Amino acid sequence: MGRVTVRRPVLRIEDGQTRRRPDALAAEEPLEIRVDGRPLAVTMRTPGHDVELAHGFLLTEGVIGDREDVATARYCDSVDDSGRNTYNVLDVALAPGVAPPDDSVERRFYTTSSCGVCGKASLDAVRTRTRYAPGADPVRLTTEVLAGLPDTLRAAQAVFETTGGLHGAGLFHADGTLVVAREDVGRHNAVDKVLGNALLDGGVPASGTVLMVSGRASFELTQKAVMAGVPVLAAVSAPSSLAVEMAREAGMTLVGFLRGRSMNVYAGAERVVTADAPLVGG
Amino acid sequence: MGRVTVRRPVLRIEDGQTRRRPDALAAEEPLEIRVDGRPLAVTMRTPGHDVELAHGFLLTEGVIGDREDVATARYCDSVDDSGRNTYNVLDVALAPGVAPPDDSVERRFYTTSSCGVCGKASLDAVRTRTRYAPGADPVRLTTEVLAGLPDTLRAAQAVFETTGGLHGAGLFHADGTLVVAREDVGRHNAVDKVLGNALLDGGVPASGTVLMVSGRASFELTQKAVMAGVPVLAAVSAPSSLAVEMAREAGMTLVGFLRGRSMNVYAGAERVVTADAPLVGG
Repeated sequence: MGRVTVRRPVLRIEDGQTRRRPDALAAEEPLEIRVDGRPLAVTMRTPGHDVELAHGFLLTEGVIGDREDVATARYCDSVDDSGRNTYNVLDVALAPGVAPPDDSVERRFYTTSSCGVCGKASLDAVRTRTRYAPGADPVRLTTEVLAGLPDTLRAAQAVFETTGGLHGAGLFHADGTLVVAREDVGRHNAVDKVLGNALLDGGVPASGTVLMVSGRASFELTQKAVMAGVPVLAAVSAPSSLAVEMAREAGMTLVGFLRGRSMNVYAGAERVVTADAPLVGG
Repeated sequence: MGRVTVRRPVLRIEDGQTRRRPDALAAEEPLEIRVDGRPLAVTMRTPGHDVELAHGFLLTEGVIGDREDVATARYCDSVDDSGRNTYNVLDVALAPGVAPPDDSVERRFYTTSSCGVCGKASLDAVRTRTRYAPGADPVRLTTEVLAGLPDTLRAAQAVFETTGGLHGAGLFHADGTLVVAREDVGRHNAVDKVLGNALLDGGVPASGTVLMVSGRASFELTQKAVMAGVPVLAAVSAPSSLAVEMAREAGMTLVGFLRGRSMNVYAGAERVVTADAPLVGG
């Protein structure tokens, strides 16, 4: 733990001048997530908040839907060559009656549809698995609140300042107050940590919230928001086509290119208002 | 095919003004890669160059090392609800004598070491699997050539201009000439397409080349460079700690924060020269 950054020497070249100096790097190490002792997944993550990460991963994969679904989560005794615990293997014991995960997580993306592998099958698979309906969430957000989210997220991203190497994700209330922010070398991990934190805090389904990510909005991140019942996803950069389709299918609001006071609303524009006036018909 | 971008209506908000307009989005769809008819992986990718993607994936996972290792690669007859081929399932038939992939790709990251799951185990696994030794590559690059790579890559990224939503990767000769550039919603896919193109062109091991990526340098991308025999990896943004360790372990050169005429050299600085003078002792 506490290995969020690592210092390494670097040769800095600037306008033909070179100098050696120490540089802070974002730490990256594998985390193996086990369920009831059985390996489920390995993710390359920034150490820290691993229990949240495991909860968020299991939530967004549809294995759990509530903190009560987990009995215990603890590091295994996985030791390195010098006999020290690596803290890189986390075993989650499910509560009695909770079904263990499907053996192959990836397969569930496309086994629920007749069309083989296609975007529609991916959307169908999420609809089949999610326990929550963010599309029914009546929350409204002002453009002023949305415009303020990137700065708040950046301010909360302490390590990015140092290393420039981490993706950020933050969960916000509709008035713009921050619930929790996390950063990680993997964008999906940052989101899993945020959503796992919300779950552990009793905040899932995450009604009335906005999930903000520092980069682009992919299908995978949009799916994670759906699985946690988040009604609004906002991204600093562009969404993919399937992210937009996922948001529309789920009735979510998807905002991209959120920079300063400008933004693109790709889905669910009825939740975005100016002061108290709706921008478009609800 | 030809679905690299998709047009969708968007509500643009700028300084309180709103207008509806069409927006070009980076296409994202699942691709299932099968080997000899058996599903191996599903990746969310931008359609196009799928044969390259499959070759690059199999190369960097250690399944193949040469284009002769593949007999055929063709789309399966996977049809959608209206009976049209989705072109989202690609079956690769291996040449006689080529061993099929290990069932669980993820597990190979950590089953080769005594220390359970840790960074060192990840590095060990790559050393065990790679067929090439980029560390022995005597190539040298000038800082002038390195400084020019980001602009060349951006110029080759046609779709990024339109959508802002794609990661880019490019393979270059040591004199800065571009071999091939690809873009994708997934950074690992962009790299797999580039390396698969090189493999199909007889250019693996990719001796004397530089792989340039538009974002950060993670362990995964560094590993892919090693598996293809690429001696130099350059990134616009920060590397992770494990990317630097992987590069040092493999004897590769790793350059980060490559912007204008400034850059950080994290590993293998002996390959970086100014005009014809080395910056550091080889």
